Amino acid sequence: MTTANLVTDTRNEEVAQLVERLRRGNVRALARAISLVENNSPLAPHILSSCFPHAGNAVRIGVTGSPGAGKSTLVNRLAQSMDGSVGILAVDPTSPFTGGAILGDRIRMQESLGLSDDGIYVRSMATRGALGGLARSTADVAIVLEASGKRTIFIETVGVGQDEVDIVRLADVTIVVLVPGMGDDVQSIKAGIMEIADIFVINKSDRDGADRLEKEVRAMQSYAAEHGGWIPPVVLTIASNGAGIDELVTAIVTFREWLFADGRGQARRRAYWRERVLEMMRGELMREVREHGFTDAELDEHASRIAAGSENPYDVVPELVRRNFRVS
Amino acid sequence: MTTANLVTDTRNEEVAQLVERLRRGNVRALARAISLVENNSPLAPHILSSCFPHAGNAVRIGVTGSPGAGKSTLVNRLAQSMDGSVGILAVDPTSPFTGGAILGDRIRMQESLGLSDDGIYVRSMATRGALGGLARSTADVAIVLEASGKRTIFIETVGVGQDEVDIVRLADVTIVVLVPGMGDDVQSIKAGIMEIADIFVINKSDRDGADRLEKEVRAMQSYAAEHGGWIPPVVLTIASNGAGIDELVTAIVTFREWLFADGRGQARRRAYWRERVLEMMRGELMREVREHGFTDAELDEHASRIAAGSENPYDVVPELVRRNFRVS
Repeated sequence: MTTANLVTDTRNEEVAQLVERLRRGNVRALARAISLVENNSPLAPHILSSCFPHAGNAVRIGVTGSPGAGKSTLVNRLAQSMDGSVGILAVDPTSPFTGGAILGDRIRMQESLGLSDDGIYVRSMATRGALGGLARSTADVAIVLEASGKRTIFIETVGVGQDEVDIVRLADVTIVVLVPGMGDDVQSIKAGIMEIADIFVINKSDRDGADRLEKEVRAMQSYAAEHGGWIPPVVLTIASNGAGIDELVTAIVTFREWLFADGRGQARRRAYWRERVLEMMRGELMREVREHGFTDAELDEHASRIAAGSENPYDVVPELVRRNFRVS
Repeated sequence: MTTANLVTDTRNEEVAQLVERLRRGNVRALARAISLVENNSPLAPHILSSCFPHAGNAVRIGVTGSPGAGKSTLVNRLAQSMDGSVGILAVDPTSPFTGGAILGDRIRMQESLGLSDDGIYVRSMATRGALGGLARSTADVAIVLEASGKRTIFIETVGVGQDEVDIVRLADVTIVVLVPGMGDDVQSIKAGIMEIADIFVINKSDRDGADRLEKEVRAMQSYAAEHGGWIPPVVLTIASNGAGIDELVTAIVTFREWLFADGRGQARRRAYWRERVLEMMRGELMREVREHGFTDAELDEHASRIAAGSENPYDVVPELVRRNFRVS
């Protein structure tokens, strides 16, 4: 047996044990597997390949909205209302400018609600250092969470950019959380938001302006594209005292039944995997290129010539690719 | 002559004329070239290849900071203080949640300052639909702007996520704009910001708390990493009345001289192109794969099987890449 084989076998054995332990509900094994996946460890592909056959049965609920909309509190309330084991991914794509803010909120939340004794697994994910993008690593971590037996996975993000939209695509159900008096009016929540929201929540609905905000959202819906026949309901909540949470759970269940009743949910997942396979191929291709076709020294040379203006990247790169790679 | 050749020749001729016109200062040609590049038209590679030899001589100034920090007003003031022709790229990665907000500001700004008669070309760029990412298209549009003879290019972004950090990498000089009393205190402007700021601006510095904010920024610097020997200055401005703008221009000039004096600026540009070439290769490889190796029907089949759980993407994708693709 070669050394390479020996290393591979040891790795496979290590991964097999780790995945078995996380599947039996070992939280430390789960946390370790997630860290390895998040950090793109050499073990990550093995872990994901071993987890995938045990994934795919959870409901994924995306929750997004402006900072300060009370998403964490809302998600915690929802998590406690769900049947079966729950995982929460708190994704913060807003660093470096507000880096850590959400994590801080989360920790406070967890303490105040005592979630850690509840079988609810909470994981914060930040942008910085997420190789291949935050959407990629969130998707992979969700696979690991599902393999660990979670029946519901909340993916909570701050709604500010393209990152969210990509992350939200992972979800079966997308909840957009608005708050009265935070500028979340018709001017700012434009067409884009209508496309991604399956359910609107107006949180902190005891504040002034909740009625007006509700009317504005409903008015937008009247001229919005049809969303495949589903008109996103508007649910008023006060997450801090639990008001409206039951109604929101009902809305989630109703939407989910509608979604999977005639194949729409399955189509959504197929569309998701279509994009994801392309993205995985892109990553895999680059790995091949970096390993076999293109040394760091060559790359540096091209970069120097381009920076000096003596080489035109828009001519050179297509030529390099055509010269060095064959698609068969 | 084949039809394909004829089409190619017609395209090349069309691009040559367009680039010639934009180089002579024709604003409509410039706008059209930018739109073609932004929308990833089939002409885009030709346009970029034709523009690149005439680019690389402008100073690129990145301006980022929280929404409401007064970046647009500041950039307009700076633009009017610069020698030579100026281009402004107002990048809004925050859609869909605040989509169009910055564009709205910009239009108001332009009207109130009468910039359109000033030789200052302003272009708003939004995330949605930007194929290959906003950083990619901003970089390409900057090349076109430079080819049109702009000597200074401002790249203005709302500082909230990874998109900004990527966009900011295009700049020679990065200005981070803070404002007193907007939560831009030491809690929220964490380590990440120190790495990207070459110059700090405290705008609306007639507000309460400007002194405290200045002290906090300076205090962070005392234990921050060295930034290669440059300690980012803190410039107090009131963009609305022009106070501090001269000092800011001086800071920009000083930083730029320092940056290019001993090769740091050149190294920065090399590092940028190194990443960019890799990214361009990734895009080019995927185009090859999509054109020659992998039909939409095949992709759909894999997506269906994966969504149904009967195929494991973490096994299949690496295998597909190895099977279809040769490094020669």
